[in-house]
Parts: sequence; C-alpha cells; structure tokens
Amino acid sequence: MPEIPQKKPRVAVIGGGDCTDDQADLAREVGAELARQGCIVITGGLGGIMAAASAGAKSQGGLTVGILPGFSAQEANEHVDLPIVTGMSHARNALVVRSAEAVIAVGGRYGTLSEIALSLNMGIPVVGLGSWQIDGMDQAETAREAVEQVLRLIAERS
Amino acid sequence: MPEIPQKKPRVAVIGGGDCTDDQADLAREVGAELARQGCIVITGGLGGIMAAASAGAKSQGGLTVGILPGFSAQEANEHVDLPIVTGMSHARNALVVRSAEAVIAVGGRYGTLSEIALSLNMGIPVVGLGSWQIDGMDQAETAREAVEQVLRLIAERS
Amino acid sequence: MPEIPQKKPRVAVIGGGDCTDDQADLAREVGAELARQGCIVITGGLGGIMAAASAGAKSQGGLTVGILPGFSAQEANEHVDLPIVTGMSHARNALVVRSAEAVIAVGGRYGTLSEIALSLNMGIPVVGLGSWQIDGMDQAETAREAVEQVLRLIAERS
Amino acid sequence: MPEIPQKKPRVAVIGGGDCTDDQADLAREVGAELARQGCIVITGGLGGIMAAASAGAKSQGGLTVGILPGFSAQEANEHVDLPIVTGMSHARNALVVRSAEAVIAVGGRYGTLSEIALSLNMGIPVVGLGSWQIDGMDQAETAREAVEQVLRLIAERS
Repeated sequence: MPEIPQKKPRVAVIGGGDCTDDQADLAREVGAELARQGCIVITGGLGGIMAAASAGAKSQGGLTVGILPGFSAQEANEHVDLPIVTGMSHARNALVVRSAEAVIAVGGRYGTLSEIALSLNMGIPVVGLGSWQIDGMDQAETAREAVEQVLRLIAERS
Repeated sequence: MPEIPQKKPRVAVIGGGDCTDDQADLAREVGAELARQGCIVITGGLGGIMAAASAGAKSQGGLTVGILPGFSAQEANEHVDLPIVTGMSHARNALVVRSAEAVIAVGGRYGTLSEIALSLNMGIPVVGLGSWQIDGMDQAETAREAVEQVLRLIAERS
Repeated sequence: MPEIPQKKPRVAVIGGGDCTDDQADLAREVGAELARQGCIVITGGLGGIMAAASAGAKSQGGLTVGILPGFSAQEANEHVDLPIVTGMSHARNALVVRSAEAVIAVGGRYGTLSEIALSLNMGIPVVGLGSWQIDGMDQAETAREAVEQVLRLIAERS
Repeated sequence: MPEIPQKKPRVAVIGGGDCTDDQADLAREVGAELARQGCIVITGGLGGIMAAASAGAKSQGGLTVGILPGFSAQEANEHVDLPIVTGMSHARNALVVRSAEAVIAVGGRYGTLSEIALSLNMGIPVVGLGSWQIDGMDQAETAREAVEQVLRLIAERS
C-alpha cells in the first residue's frame, strides 16, 4: 500500500496568475522538487505560477491540490489532481495558506502579498523566491534552497 | 504512472459527527464502494459518518479529503489523506458540497440538512440513505445502490 | 442622541429571491412590524422576500442590512441601508443567520432551507411563515405573530 | 425622515487589535472625521484601532459596523452599532475591505497588511496613516488629510 499522504508535508506555492517565463520555470522547479521530497503541492488552482508549480509536481508524480476562487472545477488548470471549489473569491486566499504547513512565494503581486501576510499572521512560515520582501518571511535564491528551507521550517515546528 | 485523480469522480459523503453503529457501518460501506469505483471521497473531515466513510474509502485504497471547519489539520480524523483547513466553521458546508460532483447523505441532522439544501440549491445531485427526505433529492436503500445512483447522475451530467 | 442600534435586536428575514405577491406582502408586513418593534432587519440583500422585508422595515424608519453573495454593493435592492459585500456566494448564508439573534422564514426554497438548517445547527431560533416545516423551528400564522414569537425567543435567551 | 444611509460612503478603518496610545488617538480622529463627513465606518469590530475608530465615529453620531472573525456578537467592542458575525476567522478580512468603498490603514501588522493587499487586489483605494508603505496605496500625514483623500478617491470613482 502506498504511504498515506496525510503524513506527507503540505506546502502551498503562491504567485501570480500572470508571470514571466523565468518565474514559471522557477515555479515548475519548486513544484518538481517538492514532489521529489514527498510533499503535497497546494495552490490557488489557476494559471501562471499556480499552473507551473502544479505541472512541476505532476512531472514527478506528486499530488496537487487547487483551492479555486470560483464556482467550477473546470476552472482548475490541467495539472490539478484535486480541485476544491470554494466559490468565495479572494476570501479563499486564507484557505490556501491555512491548509499548508509552509508557503513558498514565487513573484506575485497583491493577491500573493495578501497570502504572505495571512500566513505570517497565522504563524505559517513563508519563503520568498523573487517575491515580496516582508519582515518575518525568509528568502531563498533557488528552487532547491526554497524547498530545503520549508522542509526545515516544517520539521522544526513538529 | 497512476491514473490522474482529477479524472476521478469526486463524491461527498455527508452526515452527523455523532451517529449510530448501523449508520457508521453504512457510511463505511459507502466509502469502500466509492473507492472501489475509483471515486475521491470528500467529507467534512471530522468524526461519525465522516470518519466512517473515510475509513471505508481507505480500506480500498481510495483518496480521502476532509474539508475542516476549524483551524488545524490535527482536527481531521485519521482516515483523511488531505485536510483542507478552512477556519470558517459552518460556512465551510458550502465548500464540502460545491467541491463534489454528487453527494450521498447518511443519516444526519441540521448540519447535514444544510448541506443537502445547499447541494440542491447549487444543482448538485444528492442521494439519501436513511437521511432527510427533501423534495429534489433521490433515495437509496443500500450503500451499493447509493453509489450506483450517484455515478449514474454524474455520468448523465457530463 | 438616538438609541444605540447595538442594543436593538437583530432579526434576519429569509426567503426566496422569487416569490408570489402574497408572500411579498407578508414579508413587507414582517419587516414593518420588526422596525416598529425597534429591530434591525438583516436579509441576503437581493430581491423577492429580501427586498419586500427591507422595504417594509424602511417604511417604518428601520435600519436594513443586506449580506450580499456577490461582488458589488450595487447588487443590493434599493431598501438596503447597509450592504455587506461578501463575494462568497452561498457560503454567505451562514453569515446571514449567524449575524441575527433570531430568524423569520417566509416561503422559500433550497437556499432558505439551508439557512433554516444552519440556524438550527447554530442554536438560533427560527419562526416559519408559510415556509418549510422542519422539526425544531416554530411556526406562525401572521406577520405580527411571527415578530412576537421571535421577540419572545430573543428575550428568553438573554 | 433621515437621509438613507445607503447613500453614505462606506469607509473601512483597518489596523491592529493592539496599538499604541498615539495610534489609538489617530484612529479616533479618523473615525470622528469620517462620521462628521457622513460616512459609515466599517472595521473588524475588535479592539485597538478598530475600537478607537468606532469610538471616534460614535462620538460624532456616526454609524459603525464591525465585521467580526468569531462566533458571537459579544466579541464586538462597545462602539459597534452593527455586528456582522462571520465565524470565519481571517477569511473575514476580505469582507471588511470588500464592503467598503475605500480603506484607511492606521498602523497595523500582518492582518492589516493582508487587508491592504486584498484592497489593492480588488481595486479598492487605500490610504495609509503611519502604516505599511506598499506601492499602489496612498499616504497621509493627518487624520483629516486621510479622510479628505478617501472622499476624493470615492468621488473620482463614482
């Protein structure tokens, strides 16, 4: 029987629905590395960084969750295994980070900033990769470093 | 590589956090049969019917999701693979059913009734098993019959 | 200085966005009588029963709140003094009833049923007027009787 | 009959549940000036900046709304006329700002930052008073200046 996924760390990858090719590459690497390390990858389920991180995770056989703002599972990008359909728009941002044990932010604008702030407010660790620089979050230079950091932060807290 | 779960039907099993042994047995059968039919089992993640349905699904190697009302993944019963932590109490009921393509209600009181009503309001089919009798929902006599009905209802809609 | 509204009872009037003329008349009477009794009238802010109850309350100088499912205050009917814009669709039903000390249901279908069930689940008293007949809710024959009942129920609980 | 409050601008005042005496004084001035200008003051309904802004508004006969994160209207500070009880914790931050036409941030930490970011994400103008400095928000030096700015921003948008 496969390892029970509940025991796998849940990491949210957050970032814009629009992003540059370089940011998408970075998010894909983050997703792939998380899956290699046995993590479940949670995103907001839409395009840009969310799709790239999910695609990366799937390329390594990972499990991907998309916590969607809208009314239909069809809204999810094709790399989302499990769509959670909230129908609650921006208020779903709180659920994306609360469902994770740690967060990696890649690029991003205001939506991402709201999720960083909510994470810090809830005491959930955040690592940034070319994203906002907010007191209380950590910063990483590479996808691998970001994943190492979140795994360390999760281990320290459990 | 395993079949992509996104293609698997998502079915919510709803019912009380407290239930009789007979209701728990029924929910366990429902969960097991859903998993055998390749469905992802979504519940509210707590005890009673939610735990029994999740246990049944895990007994057959299924994937289980718990959309929790509280603030911590620890709140999930041990059979939940993937806890979604909403921190939004009863307002999460809308997410449990909206994330599913069909709903099976086993027993249940007011919380279950609210989820049945929300499903019908959203146009998501509901099958009852010894649960509320509300115009617009279907009724089944056995776990197997309930699962057959929801699979037929999902197929008709896609 | 006017009496502080916080001390005024908050009563939700729930019911369909579509309704018959008779139901609208009944809702208008309920709203008017609530306002005469010094209550704040909370609704879901849209048309049908919600608009009629709000219009009734305004006809007597009452304060009306509309807890809207969508993204814009423009969605509120013209009798809503204070639009609360949730952007969270059906999940807002839980907020309509939780913000009230008691609930009056006039007619209504599945959305109304979900709100009745949520109220009962939260322990908030519900009085029906030609609405669903669910164990645990009270029933009234006239608008005045419904308002008397909710005021008595609120008084008993405080 | 009094002017219909719906026509009054709705302004959210956001900031920490803990704050310095100077910040509380500033928030009180903001609330008072908003009420003098005929605005409805929306806050998160708890202590600190939220209580101070509400107290200021009440001192000038304004109407105050508290969109609470918890389960009880009792949680509201005594200056809240109308408690909206969400029971949805941090996810309620999205509702505080979405219900307003403009936002004034006084001091604040991560919760406030999340609300600033959500506002900017939704296109709702934000003015800061000794708060975060985020691209896209405006800054003011005094309470009166902040209120003037939000009224101008609201007027420009309607």
